[in-house]
Amino acid sequence: MQPKPDFLVPPLLIVGLGPGPDSWITPEVSEALAGVQHVVGYAPYVNRVPQREGLTRHASGNTVEVDRARLALDLAKSGQSVAVVSGGDAGIFGMAAAVFEAAEDEEYAEVPIRVLPGLSAVQVVAARAGAPIGGDFAVMSLSDRLKPWSLIEQRLRAVAGADLVLAIYNPASRSRTTQVADAQAILLEHRSGDTVVVIGRDIGRTEESLTVTTLAELEPDSIDMKCLLLIGASNTRVTATGQVWTPRFTD
Amino acid sequence: MQPKPDFLVPPLLIVGLGPGPDSWITPEVSEALAGVQHVVGYAPYVNRVPQREGLTRHASGNTVEVDRARLALDLAKSGQSVAVVSGGDAGIFGMAAAVFEAAEDEEYAEVPIRVLPGLSAVQVVAARAGAPIGGDFAVMSLSDRLKPWSLIEQRLRAVAGADLVLAIYNPASRSRTTQVADAQAILLEHRSGDTVVVIGRDIGRTEESLTVTTLAELEPDSIDMKCLLLIGASNTRVTATGQVWTPRFTD
Repeated sequence: MQPKPDFLVPPLLIVGLGPGPDSWITPEVSEALAGVQHVVGYAPYVNRVPQREGLTRHASGNTVEVDRARLALDLAKSGQSVAVVSGGDAGIFGMAAAVFEAAEDEEYAEVPIRVLPGLSAVQVVAARAGAPIGGDFAVMSLSDRLKPWSLIEQRLRAVAGADLVLAIYNPASRSRTTQVADAQAILLEHRSGDTVVVIGRDIGRTEESLTVTTLAELEPDSIDMKCLLLIGASNTRVTATGQVWTPRFTD
Repeated sequence: MQPKPDFLVPPLLIVGLGPGPDSWITPEVSEALAGVQHVVGYAPYVNRVPQREGLTRHASGNTVEVDRARLALDLAKSGQSVAVVSGGDAGIFGMAAAVFEAAEDEEYAEVPIRVLPGLSAVQVVAARAGAPIGGDFAVMSLSDRLKPWSLIEQRLRAVAGADLVLAIYNPASRSRTTQVADAQAILLEHRSGDTVVVIGRDIGRTEESLTVTTLAELEPDSIDMKCLLLIGASNTRVTATGQVWTPRFTD
């Protein structure tokens, strides 16, 4: 291990901007962003931080999370104050885990890391729909970029079998086009076709849409990377006005 | 169904204050609370909304969620603007599901309901710890007040078997003192004793504490109603400085 420097570098901050408008950014995160010298992240998130004197914004492409984390760690190690920005909550399929992954390298041993929470997509889709995650639930990414599809299948079966509500992040992308249909087929082995499904697309943005359908009627081709899916539990229900909620009690 | 009135009553708002300091309340929620005539909720949350002219605060005791929801629906039905306040995220073991439960009564058919999301305990405990929910995870309440313990057991087995990170809300209370030990025994049937466990207690408050231990060494007697537990996945790890994270990838 390298000797620790005899000064304390400021902690590398990892912050979540929430999934949509600025009114979903916590005051804690806004204050943190107003005080740092560097903001590092995927371009659409970095661009949401207003330019100001003394701030350098480092925007990078998608799917280069660990490179981006190393840049942030290098800046922090040199004594600069840095915030890594994520959409949603940085701790939920955001940049937090990628920064810890990069920080396993000995050379970053002296960089303190501090994560600030933010609203995540599951919460804002749920709020728009009503109260679909009012009971126990699971949160999964359908991406097999970093874990084998066999594990995803196993988890889908376990969640469906235990009658948990399920929030699905990253259901599809340009290169991943079969996962939603595969997941639907697996879920239908364990759950009724009438199971309530909520599709939140771009929730919090002007073009947002919310669709309520069923597991049998879900059309995989209609799902893209901007969607978050909520698969209800067996007791999840729809009100006369189309709101979705899951009772706290079981029938 | 009763005839709908020919005026629109303002929507009954259900808002989450987050689990701790005001810096975790979203601007959306702060604005909503500044504009309503009535705030309804469990006393500690209602008391966090500053008194001002034109605001009536209705504070109630714990475990009377549906009575509280009816009061709010009655006020909203009479044309008053009302916010029901929850700690954390109202949609996650908060007041949202209780309001929809009460609103199933025909007499409230004309009251529109709108939920505003907030930070939930799992997110702030995770952020304080590092990035423990960096992979797929489940969120469960250990309370058997509204669901049978047999279902909780089944879900614990499913989650443990599928190697999901698990966040446990409501692990214990004055009257529920055996659930943590029972859950620990069930989880140990499926998971290694070395599994990383995070205990967040009163996170976001001055008396907050964060403890990192293992599933084998977890002491059920140390857990009370102010705690949230995170049970790691098999690849959840602890850094040299005691931070906890779960890789996005699997080994």
